[in-house]
Amino acid sequence: MSKTLIKNSLIIPLDYEQPDYIKGDILINENMIEKISKKPVETDNNNYDQVIDGKNLIIMPGLINTHGHAAMSLLRSYADDLPLKKWLESKIWPIEALLESDDVYWGAMLSIAEMIRGGTTTFTDMYYYMDRVAEAAAMSGIRAVLSRGMIGLGFDLEQGFRDSKALISDWHGAENGRINVIIGPHSAYAGASGFLERVVELAAETGLPIQVHLAETKDEVETCLAEQGCSSTAMLSEIGFFDFKVIAAHCVHLSDRDIDILAEKKVGVSHNPGSNLKLGSGIAPIKRLLESGVNVGLGTDGAASNNNLDMIEEMRLAALVSKGVTMDPTSINAKTVLQMATVMGAEILGLEKTGTLKPGFKADLIGLRTDRLNLTPLHDPMAHIVYASAAADVSLVMVDGRLLLEDGILKTLDEEKIRAESSRCADRLVNAGKD
Amino acid sequence: MSKTLIKNSLIIPLDYEQPDYIKGDILINENMIEKISKKPVETDNNNYDQVIDGKNLIIMPGLINTHGHAAMSLLRSYADDLPLKKWLESKIWPIEALLESDDVYWGAMLSIAEMIRGGTTTFTDMYYYMDRVAEAAAMSGIRAVLSRGMIGLGFDLEQGFRDSKALISDWHGAENGRINVIIGPHSAYAGASGFLERVVELAAETGLPIQVHLAETKDEVETCLAEQGCSSTAMLSEIGFFDFKVIAAHCVHLSDRDIDILAEKKVGVSHNPGSNLKLGSGIAPIKRLLESGVNVGLGTDGAASNNNLDMIEEMRLAALVSKGVTMDPTSINAKTVLQMATVMGAEILGLEKTGTLKPGFKADLIGLRTDRLNLTPLHDPMAHIVYASAAADVSLVMVDGRLLLEDGILKTLDEEKIRAESSRCADRLVNAGKD
Repeated sequence: MSKTLIKNSLIIPLDYEQPDYIKGDILINENMIEKISKKPVETDNNNYDQVIDGKNLIIMPGLINTHGHAAMSLLRSYADDLPLKKWLESKIWPIEALLESDDVYWGAMLSIAEMIRGGTTTFTDMYYYMDRVAEAAAMSGIRAVLSRGMIGLGFDLEQGFRDSKALISDWHGAENGRINVIIGPHSAYAGASGFLERVVELAAETGLPIQVHLAETKDEVETCLAEQGCSSTAMLSEIGFFDFKVIAAHCVHLSDRDIDILAEKKVGVSHNPGSNLKLGSGIAPIKRLLESGVNVGLGTDGAASNNNLDMIEEMRLAALVSKGVTMDPTSINAKTVLQMATVMGAEILGLEKTGTLKPGFKADLIGLRTDRLNLTPLHDPMAHIVYASAAADVSLVMVDGRLLLEDGILKTLDEEKIRAESSRCADRLVNAGKD
Repeated sequence: MSKTLIKNSLIIPLDYEQPDYIKGDILINENMIEKISKKPVETDNNNYDQVIDGKNLIIMPGLINTHGHAAMSLLRSYADDLPLKKWLESKIWPIEALLESDDVYWGAMLSIAEMIRGGTTTFTDMYYYMDRVAEAAAMSGIRAVLSRGMIGLGFDLEQGFRDSKALISDWHGAENGRINVIIGPHSAYAGASGFLERVVELAAETGLPIQVHLAETKDEVETCLAEQGCSSTAMLSEIGFFDFKVIAAHCVHLSDRDIDILAEKKVGVSHNPGSNLKLGSGIAPIKRLLESGVNVGLGTDGAASNNNLDMIEEMRLAALVSKGVTMDPTSINAKTVLQMATVMGAEILGLEKTGTLKPGFKADLIGLRTDRLNLTPLHDPMAHIVYASAAADVSLVMVDGRLLLEDGILKTLDEEKIRAESSRCADRLVNAGKD
């Protein structure tokens, strides 16, 4: 039995049933939260494996990154400020074609290490060589929701399903449920005829959620309208996609009818403001989605289009950009954004007892240092986190009851080795790309 | 004589006449850059007071914050997610009315310390009790461009001019030219009849630049159109404002004619994306301003509407938001944004031999650590700074040849005391505000 007590911190449970703030102690037993107590829990050193002084800490649920491509951190700042087509066709795809299994492992490791440092306790991934990403996730201690990205064309059509099924049987539920596998068809527009229907069959067969890119660009929606007479959202609804649990990433270009479909079918949306802005895709109508009752989580997307994996930054962007484009400072408030990054993220990914701090829930939590210049004075802690804090303020990260970051130091990963190996992989890819 | 040598770093001069990158040594003699050398400068310990290993550092010009209200950091996260009118009238103004000279001193100190930590080497301020801000700036070692904010009404009308003149005579050019004073009328709409004309007279008399809030909100422009038949930009031009050097802060709502006026009159614009988004003011047409030949600097505005003073974040927001709203990823590139935060900032503020690294220029420079997860691998350093780096990556800050931050430690300021004193002031204000 492993017991940890975090004493005297400012706890933000982000639970619809608890107060916004609780000043007190939080007791973790194995991988679960056992108790949140306003009164000091008596410490008898024999009873706890670890007692952490939370005096200068805000403790809140870990951040849940609902969309990304971890290994793309190898291509961080490799190609920027380019039109989307040129970016993909002349820069990203040629390098991705050269990726080997080890590249994906070290790219994923680099991303996982960065995400832990920034307070992310769950990440979502859609890519290739996903067994290697699962290995990295298992080793690091982070919670993961993994899918084999399926283009659904040519050689990849059958291989995609084979890899997906192998990933499910090898990894789904591994590490005491810390590794989750979902189904990852790339988009409504990629894939041979009948591909999307086979995805639906696999979802029916396995009961697993589907993650798909949806309505990311204006071009996607316009092409679908021209070719099929309906939006990509309506088309997926038509073929029964949304009769299963779906996480739709991006959702930038939605009609009112599309929003109604997403709400009615309880599709979860992963909002990726940094990537959508940087690629010039546009700005997702988050306020309208939330008002329609759609659950919206936050994601970083891959580091090639972000260029970091900083969920605090995504929270800030989500709030600021919504206020700016609607010209309404009340558009989205700090608490809503915090919910998007935690409890709503857990809901859309189908993670049970995660994303909220309360007894019986998983001990996925983070601590932010408040004794920082940028967080002084301390008027409103929720506003501080969303509008003033930084990834570097995260000093403690616990996933499933295990400390992954303590006093700002990674406990399960060798940062220097990860930087060296991932740099080596990136150099090899870029040099090979020149040939 | 004090000589510092920074060896073997990656130098980004941000000079229109030098290459983008120079790998080499940079030699600082007293407060000036003496030499930038690709060949290793021979080190004879007798010749240098300090030799810094720059192996893992990007050295670039210090960031220039072209608009702010430093003491408002006392109200950081005090009032958020509110409509602008309610935010000002029920929250900000009542507290500001209670401000005493010591509050302004400690609020400014808090902001200066945070800005130095984030790589800002020059800040611009418009507020009250400006002699105390000047004191804080002098003590800290940061470069400052200070103005007494003048509402131009009632009691403040004469007092504003008296304070401005005293600030000019007491502080302009102090600390070997490190403290600069400019003239700070609040806006085109504030002030009694004849106030703006008197501001123009003071500019003519002193030869000093003017900083003014301009076209920040749609309401400002619409009211001016309704009441005076022209935009606030056209109105200021009409009364001869722009015949002097002017820094116009915000410039969110501009017609094509307004942009032509700003370009023709060589008005500098301070773009404050974080504050404009957060207050729901809108999004300034930066791409169009730059294309028209207007120099655009970057600013944080006050921490009450931001809520931090992180110039790296402002760079990122400027680039991302421009790409997102224009739906064009080539809208503004990383290098342009870096120029806005450095050399263009110096130009609009009228700071000579500042904002660029080259021999004969002032030694205002910063070092960012590249051995970080979020900056791995190192494909494109300029893209890294704008899209992936964080304030916490800044480990070295030098202003006028003096180190203010070294290995991430503040050299001239007592961080703990500043946090305690500014918190004390903030608590007093908020408690007094409750009465």
